[in-house]
Amino acid sequence: MRSAFYISDGTAITAEVFGHATLSLFPVEFKHITIPFVETVEKALEIKAQINACSKISGERPLVFYTFVNPELSDILNEADAITYDFLTTISDKVQSELKVAPVPRTHRTHSIHEKNYDFRIDAVNYALANDDGSNLKDYDEADIILVGVSRCGKTPTSLYLALQYGIKAANYPFTEDDMDELRLPKALIPYRKKLFGLTIEPERLAAIRHERMANSRYASLRQCRLEIREVEMLYKNNKIPYLSSTHYSVEEISAKILAETGLERRKY
Amino acid sequence: MRSAFYISDGTAITAEVFGHATLSLFPVEFKHITIPFVETVEKALEIKAQINACSKISGERPLVFYTFVNPELSDILNEADAITYDFLTTISDKVQSELKVAPVPRTHRTHSIHEKNYDFRIDAVNYALANDDGSNLKDYDEADIILVGVSRCGKTPTSLYLALQYGIKAANYPFTEDDMDELRLPKALIPYRKKLFGLTIEPERLAAIRHERMANSRYASLRQCRLEIREVEMLYKNNKIPYLSSTHYSVEEISAKILAETGLERRKY
Repeated sequence: MRSAFYISDGTAITAEVFGHATLSLFPVEFKHITIPFVETVEKALEIKAQINACSKISGERPLVFYTFVNPELSDILNEADAITYDFLTTISDKVQSELKVAPVPRTHRTHSIHEKNYDFRIDAVNYALANDDGSNLKDYDEADIILVGVSRCGKTPTSLYLALQYGIKAANYPFTEDDMDELRLPKALIPYRKKLFGLTIEPERLAAIRHERMANSRYASLRQCRLEIREVEMLYKNNKIPYLSSTHYSVEEISAKILAETGLERRKY
Repeated sequence: MRSAFYISDGTAITAEVFGHATLSLFPVEFKHITIPFVETVEKALEIKAQINACSKISGERPLVFYTFVNPELSDILNEADAITYDFLTTISDKVQSELKVAPVPRTHRTHSIHEKNYDFRIDAVNYALANDDGSNLKDYDEADIILVGVSRCGKTPTSLYLALQYGIKAANYPFTEDDMDELRLPKALIPYRKKLFGLTIEPERLAAIRHERMANSRYASLRQCRLEIREVEMLYKNNKIPYLSSTHYSVEEISAKILAETGLERRKY
């Protein structure tokens, strides 16, 4: 199997995301290898030797996606027995000729603690944890958004993703049967109606998820799941709460849809 | 201020990560606008109009980083009054000529629920939450890694990042004063010594973080933080537990360093 390397003087997250998106276009399997924090000539030479060995053993030249601030390190990798893609430079050269401004490369500019709003993201994670699952009703003033929905429809992972990736303070509140029987919003949520965003899910998928948690319970029964979902969707409609179904979407997709629909400002790109 | 658009038929995460990394090389401020899920000709025409309006109002042509599977949508954006970068195609054309295999583009290939190991990532998030802060000692058999350290040194956000991004089951255990006084590992951790990874932090930074949580407490005092950090680092050394300092690193950097050092296999790229 051919190998794909993602290499950088920082976390290599950009190389991973870009390289993996590129390779996923092709119906070819790769062995993926990420090597972050390659910051010295010695380390670059060591990685070059590793790539050469990989090429020799597999008989196929690896694909190498890399970003370096120091061009000396790029030169070393370009001499490896591999196909190398200095993908950021390929585009930044074009950006430079448009902006007519020279780049000022600096290591650890992205994905580092020095990024603007880094502390805000950690605060948002702590907020999401403290306000998970309706555990805390008194700090909703601080919330950027309050995700609502029945138990196990995807609120918690989405709250955490919004916090970690975008620095958005997302609380989440699970509707209980009592809330829904009456088909009205719990009192605690009424002052925050404009911050509410609903999740729903297909009853079959919900039953499967709940079944893993509590097999053969009423809670996991398809009948109960159908009932809850029907009620919660009516609650959303009656209260004009925007909502979406998590059934076919990843946390990344749900979060992107929520940001697009609410216009919430992300604090990190 | 010049605007930068990140546009895609999916989440636009790849466009955001790549475009933002490119622009961060330049000493220029941008207004960032992400538009995900542009999947139809109608929507693309609407976005083109939005870009044109933005160009007219600001007097500067926006930079547009986009990825589309449907070339019809690319054509529409290429006609906008903007500088457009079809950055993925720029590189995938080169990859194609190397692999001698045609790409098979498909929407929602990355960052979607259909990605391999998606469910594993959600399981890992649930695991991290259930095993946060030493709240559960009986499921450590399942852990890929157990982060250890004193209270507030960065264990929880790191566990969640490892879970959400990479599908790694990360438990975390906070050393208490009792654990450290004796300078030996708590009994519960001894069978899992090989899974332990330590975090440490500069006492000044730790005191500042704890101060925000519990101002003027003994817990937040610099004296107490110094004592705990000295003891915990001795504990790591005595027990040959690999560790790193979180003081100057983001969760992304800490996670990348942990993966590089332990060789843990990530379940998502």
